[in-house]
Amino acid sequence: MANVQWMTKPLDLKDVTIAGGFWGRRTETNRRITLPIEYQQCKATGRIDRWKWRTGQPNEPHVFWDSDVAKWIEAAAYSLAARRDDRLEKQIDEAVDMMAAGQLADGYLNCHYSRVEPQNRWTNLRDCHELYCAGHLMEAAVAYYEATGKRQFLNVMRRYADHIASVFGPGEAQKRGYPGHEEIELGLVKLYRATGNRRYLELSRFFIDERGRQPHYYDVEAKARGEQPRGYHFRTYDYCQAHKPVREQSEVVGHAVRAFYLYAGMADVAAETGDEKLLAACRRLWNDATQRKMYITGGVGPSAGNEGFTHPNDLPNDTAYAETCAAIALVFFAHRMLNIECEGQYADVMERALYNGVISGVSLDGKRFFYANPLQARPAVLARSGSHIAITRQPWFPCACCPPNVARLIASIGRYAYSASPTALYVHLYAAGSASPEVGGAKITLTQQTDYPWDGEVKLTVKLDKPAAFALMPRIPGWCREYELAVNGKSVRAAVSKGYARLLRRWSDGDEVTLSLAMGVERIAAHPSVAADAGKVAIQRGPLVYCLEQCDNNADVLSVALPDRARLTAKHSRKLLGGCVVIEGRGLAVSTAGWAGRLYRRAEEVKTKLVKIKAIPYCLWANRKAGAMKVYIPRA
Amino acid sequence: MANVQWMTKPLDLKDVTIAGGFWGRRTETNRRITLPIEYQQCKATGRIDRWKWRTGQPNEPHVFWDSDVAKWIEAAAYSLAARRDDRLEKQIDEAVDMMAAGQLADGYLNCHYSRVEPQNRWTNLRDCHELYCAGHLMEAAVAYYEATGKRQFLNVMRRYADHIASVFGPGEAQKRGYPGHEEIELGLVKLYRATGNRRYLELSRFFIDERGRQPHYYDVEAKARGEQPRGYHFRTYDYCQAHKPVREQSEVVGHAVRAFYLYAGMADVAAETGDEKLLAACRRLWNDATQRKMYITGGVGPSAGNEGFTHPNDLPNDTAYAETCAAIALVFFAHRMLNIECEGQYADVMERALYNGVISGVSLDGKRFFYANPLQARPAVLARSGSHIAITRQPWFPCACCPPNVARLIASIGRYAYSASPTALYVHLYAAGSASPEVGGAKITLTQQTDYPWDGEVKLTVKLDKPAAFALMPRIPGWCREYELAVNGKSVRAAVSKGYARLLRRWSDGDEVTLSLAMGVERIAAHPSVAADAGKVAIQRGPLVYCLEQCDNNADVLSVALPDRARLTAKHSRKLLGGCVVIEGRGLAVSTAGWAGRLYRRAEEVKTKLVKIKAIPYCLWANRKAGAMKVYIPRA
Repeated sequence: MANVQWMTKPLDLKDVTIAGGFWGRRTETNRRITLPIEYQQCKATGRIDRWKWRTGQPNEPHVFWDSDVAKWIEAAAYSLAARRDDRLEKQIDEAVDMMAAGQLADGYLNCHYSRVEPQNRWTNLRDCHELYCAGHLMEAAVAYYEATGKRQFLNVMRRYADHIASVFGPGEAQKRGYPGHEEIELGLVKLYRATGNRRYLELSRFFIDERGRQPHYYDVEAKARGEQPRGYHFRTYDYCQAHKPVREQSEVVGHAVRAFYLYAGMADVAAETGDEKLLAACRRLWNDATQRKMYITGGVGPSAGNEGFTHPNDLPNDTAYAETCAAIALVFFAHRMLNIECEGQYADVMERALYNGVISGVSLDGKRFFYANPLQARPAVLARSGSHIAITRQPWFPCACCPPNVARLIASIGRYAYSASPTALYVHLYAAGSASPEVGGAKITLTQQTDYPWDGEVKLTVKLDKPAAFALMPRIPGWCREYELAVNGKSVRAAVSKGYARLLRRWSDGDEVTLSLAMGVERIAAHPSVAADAGKVAIQRGPLVYCLEQCDNNADVLSVALPDRARLTAKHSRKLLGGCVVIEGRGLAVSTAGWAGRLYRRAEEVKTKLVKIKAIPYCLWANRKAGAMKVYIPRA
Repeated sequence: MANVQWMTKPLDLKDVTIAGGFWGRRTETNRRITLPIEYQQCKATGRIDRWKWRTGQPNEPHVFWDSDVAKWIEAAAYSLAARRDDRLEKQIDEAVDMMAAGQLADGYLNCHYSRVEPQNRWTNLRDCHELYCAGHLMEAAVAYYEATGKRQFLNVMRRYADHIASVFGPGEAQKRGYPGHEEIELGLVKLYRATGNRRYLELSRFFIDERGRQPHYYDVEAKARGEQPRGYHFRTYDYCQAHKPVREQSEVVGHAVRAFYLYAGMADVAAETGDEKLLAACRRLWNDATQRKMYITGGVGPSAGNEGFTHPNDLPNDTAYAETCAAIALVFFAHRMLNIECEGQYADVMERALYNGVISGVSLDGKRFFYANPLQARPAVLARSGSHIAITRQPWFPCACCPPNVARLIASIGRYAYSASPTALYVHLYAAGSASPEVGGAKITLTQQTDYPWDGEVKLTVKLDKPAAFALMPRIPGWCREYELAVNGKSVRAAVSKGYARLLRRWSDGDEVTLSLAMGVERIAAHPSVAADAGKVAIQRGPLVYCLEQCDNNADVLSVALPDRARLTAKHSRKLLGGCVVIEGRGLAVSTAGWAGRLYRRAEEVKTKLVKIKAIPYCLWANRKAGAMKVYIPRA
């Protein structure tokens, strides 16, 4: 690619409405239930009032508490962009006031270090989340500024960013460090865009470029603390993607959230600075992630031990960690690559994660959260592989990264639905609502009517003051075998390239595009190198991966198999789980007769019988009675 | 059962010969290769010379080093029982001399505590293996005495046992403690039998009875150390089976080796003291272990995290810990229950473990060892769940419990092959060699000719001076569907009860019994509650569980499936792996065509093809090129 740059940009959140349907309901629940709950949890645990903490009191501010509040503010800000809310703004303003008051004269802003161990500022970037917290605060500040126009938080973060830029850099008196947990790379790019100050972009690039260089900063830093670098808990710098310079990396390694925040930051910097080599690394890492290391749910990072990656095709189902935050981070990376390259493969993965491994992180009622998102669950077993793997969503976690992360993603789902260039409007996600970009020289409004993902019918209506020429680019999802497109009721055969149909014309007010995506029930196999899925299939319909949950089935779901010839039927169920499409069919259940007192028997003695089975969308499991669940089903 | 006692007793090792065949070869390799290697490892790591260690030197004696040397001595002693060896005895005598010199005036004998932290004797029974080491030393001392008649080591251990009996007990000035890692219970019973001193049996019973009582000794002990009991690394006393009194226990929990050493000790004490309630607990724990928590290989303890148990039917294949020592401990428990109840179910499990999950712990050449014994292995993946899970056997381990444990079991395999009562001789294991018990009032010799487990033909010949009446009780294994028995060439229909045929007659010199066990190739299914094996079968022939190892197969073994109708054929292969029976047939392999760059596809697009597959005995895997392996194969 000759010119690395943003081919498209997402729309401002203020220019997108999500109303009704799958995401409308989720954003509404997020605004009405989840955000207040998360505020209360932050309040009750001392996170909101962390700046009031004094030595000897309970609730000592943890090294990443700043980030928890930051993500909640960011989520709230996105919600405010759609609908102002005085009470919510007051809560944020109070939190910001405390931060502003706590900011040190030199601009430094970290509650833990200011209050608990001021002597140790910037002494342990490898482990202690200082720059990570700063990054989340920057993202929050930009979001709040864009939603409300209020500048206080933004200014606090500019001062902090200036301070960081003075401490870190290539100068002789500066530290050549970079974050152990990546995130600030993203925050700095957003701050650059919001302020126009290129220093922040350059600092982001600095952090990316320094990463993994020799002499290794984390070695130097450990020795300065009087520690042996070998004493690193995670043994190798793979854990934080600092094992080699990022431009030399081709394999997705280590902690999954860190990995994808880094890659998203790399994509940002590549696009903003026109850096082809950096983008090439992004592409290599993308391929490795999506071709060898991603669950069918879009979950990433199979292992609880390092909250991250192990080896290619190591995708165990019952011990899948697949942290909610990691799937979100994959969405961030996918979204950036999508806006750089406008290829459907990025939107396909983004959609896969959003509808499955991300949204599974929060209950339908918005009150409880999954940290890990396993693909198979047994009530008694899940504790085996890490305390974050559970079969019931939890109200909160001591390490509370996931709840506000999923909240900020849901609140900003509109950012992921559309992108525009001066001449084209891309529709990435089908979700009822509207978008009002400038395209083709005109300010237009595109409304979407759809019940997606429950069916594949989408109606797009163009509203504009006077006719304008631009390309409307509805996405043809990778999962879709057949589709029909019509403009104003007339079937059209549009050119489809890289996952998008190109409808280039002079659009008039009221023009209607109808897209009909055939949504069959599919059996999906994983690559034969995925040992965990050998001999098994998953059920998928549209973007939704399905699972068998015990409470819908009489047969033991963990032993049931699926005959290749069994017909699977999609059925709309208005009452179930707030309305969804279930998949029904017949499975082969193992009779428990003759098993008493026996653990092993000749297979020929084992009786099976055909039984009704019902599968629900994976993202909706664990909203009823706790029980077994599985995504991958043995073929029979 | 009205009278709890030993119905039979194993023969003295000196009265059993194992010659040729499967176990003859293993015992020979054990004697010639493994024992010298283990001595050298113990020597090179400072274990043998641990008593020479002084503060500041390298190789500080670890808390369980005494036990490593003890198990090696015990193994060597069993080998000496079959064949004296001056060089080996000299090595042992030197090691014993050092121990005797190191024994304190009061009888105390623990190298770590004597040399490293003398102030902390008996202050941390929960974690620090003091009594565990003592138990292994007792077993070694008894074995060496029985093999050689030399009393020095036995006397050292009597003095130590007397010391322990003075420290621990119900008296006011005594500690009511018991071992965090059970083992001494077995050692004390052996010491009791060797010396006739009932005090040792009573001390064993004391340790068993105190276990798990309130106030909890480990709480008391932790507080005395100035620690919070809650700070226990393993959180609950389940880990060491001290969560409740043993007579109230029904579920197999915690660290697997500890668990089965305890249960074996409970069975010992129950039989020696006629304790029905204690035996009832053993039966409950046996049922729980073998009906819900045992791999088809006889491996036990699925989890690396606690080296032990999780939940019923949690038997993952690729992360199976199934420590070699744990399968050995299961054999100990099974062997004791077998001699109490004379039921084939105990011998079936004992045989299952011996031929699969135990013997897999050592390479065919006797030089390398598995600590964990997974049922599925992928070169790149195994590191995920614990450093002890590997795909190649290792020459040694820092925690070196398994190598000498498997050595002592192999060296004493004769103990497991036969049992006798005054009127009956039981043949539990079919192995070429002979046994010379007293039975029916006569000293007889029974020779066995067989190529078991490679085929099911067994010829037993009775040799005696004058005819004697007794019951010869050859075992009819649980895996066997059909068998024929003949005496002196004439087919007999013997009564078969609880797994043994009863051949009661007046035996004359030269009488021959031939037993022909039909050895079909069987597909074995696991209980439907074992989620890891849903839709899969394992291949078994005779007592041997089979596996697909990559180096025997062109197709990727981890993705290959087994059609239900595919014929499986046993084939003797004289050259392979020192001679074994392989299973051949056709499997369904997934074609890699069309998968480039894809991780998920519609199952209907995936091409499969029938390919030749070859399975080898599980116990023989990883003796060639390192590669993938699996026991459970998806049905197709």
